[in-house]
Amino acid sequence: MNVNGKHYRALWMEGSTVCMIDQNLLPFEFSIYRCNDIDETCRAIKTMITRGAGSIGAAGAYGMLQAIYNNKSDENLYNELFVSKQKIDSTRPTAVNLFYATDRVLEASKISKEFAVSEAFAIADECVEQSRKIGIFGAELIKDGYGIETHCNAGWLALVDYGSALSPLYTAHDSGKNIFVYVDETRPRSQGARLTAWELEQHGILHAIIPDNAGAHYMSKGKINIIITGADRIAANGDTANKIGTLEKAISAKYYGIPFYIAAPTSTIDLKTNYGSLISIEERGEEEVLYYSGKQKNGKIIEIQVANPGSKALNPAFDVTPAELITGIITEKGIINPDKESIKNLFL
Amino acid sequence: MNVNGKHYRALWMEGSTVCMIDQNLLPFEFSIYRCNDIDETCRAIKTMITRGAGSIGAAGAYGMLQAIYNNKSDENLYNELFVSKQKIDSTRPTAVNLFYATDRVLEASKISKEFAVSEAFAIADECVEQSRKIGIFGAELIKDGYGIETHCNAGWLALVDYGSALSPLYTAHDSGKNIFVYVDETRPRSQGARLTAWELEQHGILHAIIPDNAGAHYMSKGKINIIITGADRIAANGDTANKIGTLEKAISAKYYGIPFYIAAPTSTIDLKTNYGSLISIEERGEEEVLYYSGKQKNGKIIEIQVANPGSKALNPAFDVTPAELITGIITEKGIINPDKESIKNLFL
Repeated sequence: MNVNGKHYRALWMEGSTVCMIDQNLLPFEFSIYRCNDIDETCRAIKTMITRGAGSIGAAGAYGMLQAIYNNKSDENLYNELFVSKQKIDSTRPTAVNLFYATDRVLEASKISKEFAVSEAFAIADECVEQSRKIGIFGAELIKDGYGIETHCNAGWLALVDYGSALSPLYTAHDSGKNIFVYVDETRPRSQGARLTAWELEQHGILHAIIPDNAGAHYMSKGKINIIITGADRIAANGDTANKIGTLEKAISAKYYGIPFYIAAPTSTIDLKTNYGSLISIEERGEEEVLYYSGKQKNGKIIEIQVANPGSKALNPAFDVTPAELITGIITEKGIINPDKESIKNLFL
Repeated sequence: MNVNGKHYRALWMEGSTVCMIDQNLLPFEFSIYRCNDIDETCRAIKTMITRGAGSIGAAGAYGMLQAIYNNKSDENLYNELFVSKQKIDSTRPTAVNLFYATDRVLEASKISKEFAVSEAFAIADECVEQSRKIGIFGAELIKDGYGIETHCNAGWLALVDYGSALSPLYTAHDSGKNIFVYVDETRPRSQGARLTAWELEQHGILHAIIPDNAGAHYMSKGKINIIITGADRIAANGDTANKIGTLEKAISAKYYGIPFYIAAPTSTIDLKTNYGSLISIEERGEEEVLYYSGKQKNGKIIEIQVANPGSKALNPAFDVTPAELITGIITEKGIINPDKESIKNLFL
């Protein structure tokens, strides 16, 4: 999508360097972060310089690509990539797209180095094409005049281009439908207030940031016609791990009879995980809750303490929304019901 | 309750000065704010230097007291107090305790100036006694080993002393029960992370601050045995207006079959409001969502921008939880069902 009129992807390769839009500096500063080797790429994934299911997958593939470029003897390629995969996978233990991407490059290396290279590049390109298709299918659900709530950022920053949850919004807007987006702030890292709001502004879509606490209030007032969020991992039965807070929106939507959709490429589906409670939830550091970074009047980005200094905090990164709360899953292959049968059929 | 070993109320009179613990400076600084006349008291209520249903009521009563002290001729007392009441009531249009307090002093002034003075003092004292009783009734619901979630601050800061939602926790803890409190951060003003966490720390109660998004997650994991929040206004049918986000906790609690209680003195009940949708919801400024204040490393309290600079925000201060989601209401007269009949019986 465009930034100040120029087209960008969330990340790309330049030679053996992984370039990524620094999502920790947005929305205050638009800056490109460069990773010169696999270790720098791993650090960038871990510190969330790039984030979001698809972009993490592409970053993992590019990290494998850096390992391939660094490989001197074809003989050791598989063994070296096996180690690289472990290193990359450990950066974000809930992100199934990461394992999917590193697996695919590793498997390809059994055939040839060239094939592994082309697979690494294909992962980002496929993500873009899938995101575009999710937008086309998902836009059918959005009527003119709709109020739409979304949580966290499942936009083009998270999926290389277009996005998952936001792609239908872009498509609906581009086809002339008037929409208004209620953007959940998404504490503690505020990806909604910082990234989704920034994306929507860049694209000229009307929106307002709301505190995470306000979702059910606007649902109760009839302001929200549909909720669409992304997914970090979808189990074989449709249970979905996504950013902490998604579960409360889904429960509230059920209570008010509002359609609640997950938008995600099929690569987010983990058939090996039978149901949601088997998904391990990443616990992040308490400092993300107790401190907050932002822009000072003088333009400097600083961190301030925002909670009682003597208290501890808990910071689960994800929650699991049970399939029974999900109206449908918007994939690049169409919109499906969140059940075992429909999910299995996607892969036939 | 105690602060560093010395007993305080949230606010009190010294001569004709209203003294209040400055709740905007907590938890970083413990400081007493002094209001020399009714206008300063009104400003303090509006800017939330004192806040919470009971403390606002006491502040309103003390504001009326300042107007009485300022009155020169007994003849004009009622008319002057009538104007003062309008001034005070307009500071927080959702806070029924404010209207209750100013009404009571105004009515008393029909009898005598002295009676009006004693009524103004009685309001704070009664709030304290009611809070103490809420603690005794509510503690019966709390078993040893319980995980308890609370939203916003309905502690002694909010109710002159003891608190409403927190009073049962203090009583349970003091009687030797082991409890662990999940403290909702309560964006945008973070009364949970700042005030409730500070109160619990001062009292030595184990707790952790959680992002508002994490409530349903801990409910789904079986960590939360009961949820208790305060109330800003309770309608005649039990529908309850409280801090934005209360509604999502109540809906989530219902989904997981967890008891959800409102704790509030009966003065919070507004029999003239038949049901919740008649309660007007205060919309506060968007800057509370887009900016965040906190403590810098050098100890200075500053404000930083925490959202996309080009986006607007919406900031409803309260939501309304329908009675059907509330297990019971803990009052100073006992625990009642949230229905018209039970509420009416409280006032017989």
